[in-house]
Amino acid sequence: MNLLLEWLDARGIEVHALGEPSDEERERPPYWRVWRLLPPRGRLAFFVGSWYTSPIVERAFGDLGDSEFDEAMDRVVAFERMLSNERVLVLKFWLHLSKAEQRKRLRELEGDPKTRWRVTKQDWKFSKRYEEFREISETALRKTDTAEAPWHIVEATDKRYRNLAVARTILEKLEEVLERAKEKPPKIEPDVPKLEKPNIISRLDFRKRVDEKEYDEKLPRLQGKIAELTRRLHDANRGLLLVFEGPDAAGKGGAIRRLTQAMDARNYRVISVAAPTEEERAHPYLWRFWRHLPRLGRVTIYDRSWYGRVLVERLEGFCRKEEWQRAYSEINDFEAQLAEFGIVLIKFWLAISSVEQLRRFKDRQETPYKQYKIGPEDWRNRSKWDAYEAAACDMIERTSTRKAPWVLVEANDKPHARVKVLRSVVERLEKEVE
Amino acid sequence: MNLLLEWLDARGIEVHALGEPSDEERERPPYWRVWRLLPPRGRLAFFVGSWYTSPIVERAFGDLGDSEFDEAMDRVVAFERMLSNERVLVLKFWLHLSKAEQRKRLRELEGDPKTRWRVTKQDWKFSKRYEEFREISETALRKTDTAEAPWHIVEATDKRYRNLAVARTILEKLEEVLERAKEKPPKIEPDVPKLEKPNIISRLDFRKRVDEKEYDEKLPRLQGKIAELTRRLHDANRGLLLVFEGPDAAGKGGAIRRLTQAMDARNYRVISVAAPTEEERAHPYLWRFWRHLPRLGRVTIYDRSWYGRVLVERLEGFCRKEEWQRAYSEINDFEAQLAEFGIVLIKFWLAISSVEQLRRFKDRQETPYKQYKIGPEDWRNRSKWDAYEAAACDMIERTSTRKAPWVLVEANDKPHARVKVLRSVVERLEKEVE
Repeated sequence: MNLLLEWLDARGIEVHALGEPSDEERERPPYWRVWRLLPPRGRLAFFVGSWYTSPIVERAFGDLGDSEFDEAMDRVVAFERMLSNERVLVLKFWLHLSKAEQRKRLRELEGDPKTRWRVTKQDWKFSKRYEEFREISETALRKTDTAEAPWHIVEATDKRYRNLAVARTILEKLEEVLERAKEKPPKIEPDVPKLEKPNIISRLDFRKRVDEKEYDEKLPRLQGKIAELTRRLHDANRGLLLVFEGPDAAGKGGAIRRLTQAMDARNYRVISVAAPTEEERAHPYLWRFWRHLPRLGRVTIYDRSWYGRVLVERLEGFCRKEEWQRAYSEINDFEAQLAEFGIVLIKFWLAISSVEQLRRFKDRQETPYKQYKIGPEDWRNRSKWDAYEAAACDMIERTSTRKAPWVLVEANDKPHARVKVLRSVVERLEKEVE
Repeated sequence: MNLLLEWLDARGIEVHALGEPSDEERERPPYWRVWRLLPPRGRLAFFVGSWYTSPIVERAFGDLGDSEFDEAMDRVVAFERMLSNERVLVLKFWLHLSKAEQRKRLRELEGDPKTRWRVTKQDWKFSKRYEEFREISETALRKTDTAEAPWHIVEATDKRYRNLAVARTILEKLEEVLERAKEKPPKIEPDVPKLEKPNIISRLDFRKRVDEKEYDEKLPRLQGKIAELTRRLHDANRGLLLVFEGPDAAGKGGAIRRLTQAMDARNYRVISVAAPTEEERAHPYLWRFWRHLPRLGRVTIYDRSWYGRVLVERLEGFCRKEEWQRAYSEINDFEAQLAEFGIVLIKFWLAISSVEQLRRFKDRQETPYKQYKIGPEDWRNRSKWDAYEAAACDMIERTSTRKAPWVLVEANDKPHARVKVLRSVVERLEKEVE
């Protein structure tokens, strides 16, 4: 590593030694620390110790069973595939040392007062389990040796050979990548999916309503429960993550406001997702969502979300077909990681009819204090109503999981929509907090 | 707070309750956590508990003496002045409650099973010291009641009065700011300082050199010491921060490389400072340097730095006169915070003569593998040689402090420059590590 940094230009290269996670890292799913260290496009990062380290060590010491280890390796494969698809070149080196050679080296380092500090108790502890590590590592290598991110096994006994072998591979791979980078990327075409009817959205009963009296009675009761349940969730050090999607003017803001009225301002955050920044565009797609992931014990409400990828970005041609197509599984994997970590996830699709949207748009245009809420973009989106609904159906079908279900909310009647949102949160939290 | 968030639009507003710092926060100077939470332009953030909290609490419990408390308040004033200069509207509310009223409220909250959780042991502990807190807070308020960020004292006994008073002030101040925002900012003119001679740079002896034999002997010895000293620094959990500035082709990269050859790749990072990103431009100037501040125990080397503000930005008209003028004291305060936190700071100015630069530029143009290092921008900068040297002299004079000194390095002879850089680091570290 030291030599590589000398041969390369250390300016702008980052070296990350993943040791013990910090407390901020422990309060997020394990991959958070990896995501936050991913280099932007055009930059290099070295990981000494990586996403492989803790599964291998935990398996060796029996903290992870065989099937859990397999799952961890599947996650590695999915992660590296995502990186590769996002045009990140992943180079993995496995430096192999025989047991005898390892012991010899540790003893040599210990023998010299200048290098003695480099040998820790852990080194010897690990060395004692050489055979187990070897077996587990072989399994790891076999399971994660993919076309996108193959392993480069380097015999490390001879230092000069090792250094040259690693450097030569890096050189070759960089040349390959640069060669490929000359190809002009194909032009991106917006996708216009055809709307099939009936579908899961059109089948909703848009006439559902809650009258004023019922609303005035139910709202405070539901809010009271949410106040109590979110506090218990906080005490249990678990997170709650709510996603709101739906057509413009579906009432997302109003529903969110009825939720937050019941919560402690210090405990929740509403994130309104807009266009990504320059730095965010320089990283893999989900980076901007990983980066703002809240610590445990908090409530985070997304007003629009990562689903933009398979909705607006798909329909407006902001990303390539293969990008939004693979987004479904990337998102499912992302949400699975949140759920495994104890974060309660609920996703709401607020559905209104096209006629109702038109009525609300007109109302916004005619009411002075609502005019800021409507602009040309809203009318442009509306003109693609069918394509949006078709994309939403695809999305709901492909990303409704048991741990992160979509709740379809009939939202032509705002009181009904708000009560349904609040009730869904209450019911889910009651189940989770018990 | 809850009511304010309801009246405003919670989307995009951030509420930060500054409680116990995390371990990542504890490994950086105290203001790091505040800087990382500063909202970008166009956004609002609420702090419940702020940069005032820990000085006041620590003073009340005697962990801070009077003069230390005064210093803490001076730092607050400087911080808020910087924010205000950076066009951040700072609104500070002090909600006043009498001792009797406070106790009554705590008892009421405790009496109701639904709100009992809100009263902690700490609340009573603090309430017992009501008088001390009152006195210290009065001092804090008096010392930090500035024109840029005045205090708004609100009598908090009557909840309705309190809510309206706070909301009304926010409304008024926002209106004022929006009114002022209509004024067109004046055009920025590049500054062209006149070069006085002799000056601290021109007085350097550019003939100093180190011959090959001496270099081959000294370099490995110095590098050996650096290897040992940076390791000891790491063990002592202290940081080292090196800044390199100087004209193009002064040899910054080469000097940095001789330093890093001696260090463990996992322990240092070289940051090459380029143009700020969009997100960075949306924050106060020093934000982008605060944000990448390393954890303790690491070495960070800046190839160009925050001093760009008073060099290139001043001379190219990238910032207004008042901005680069106040940068000197902002930078001094920034570096003082690093030094107080135990980070060892050394700043190197690599000085070459104009004739030597010309020779190196020509060499770069004529040597194929060096051509990437030279472009039109380098020639443009060169045409402003005198102005750059004058700006550098101003900078060195205004920002050489005992804890963060500038070391001027005669760099016409590269071996001499490298030996001097390494020796300076060794001498300083020897003093600090003892």
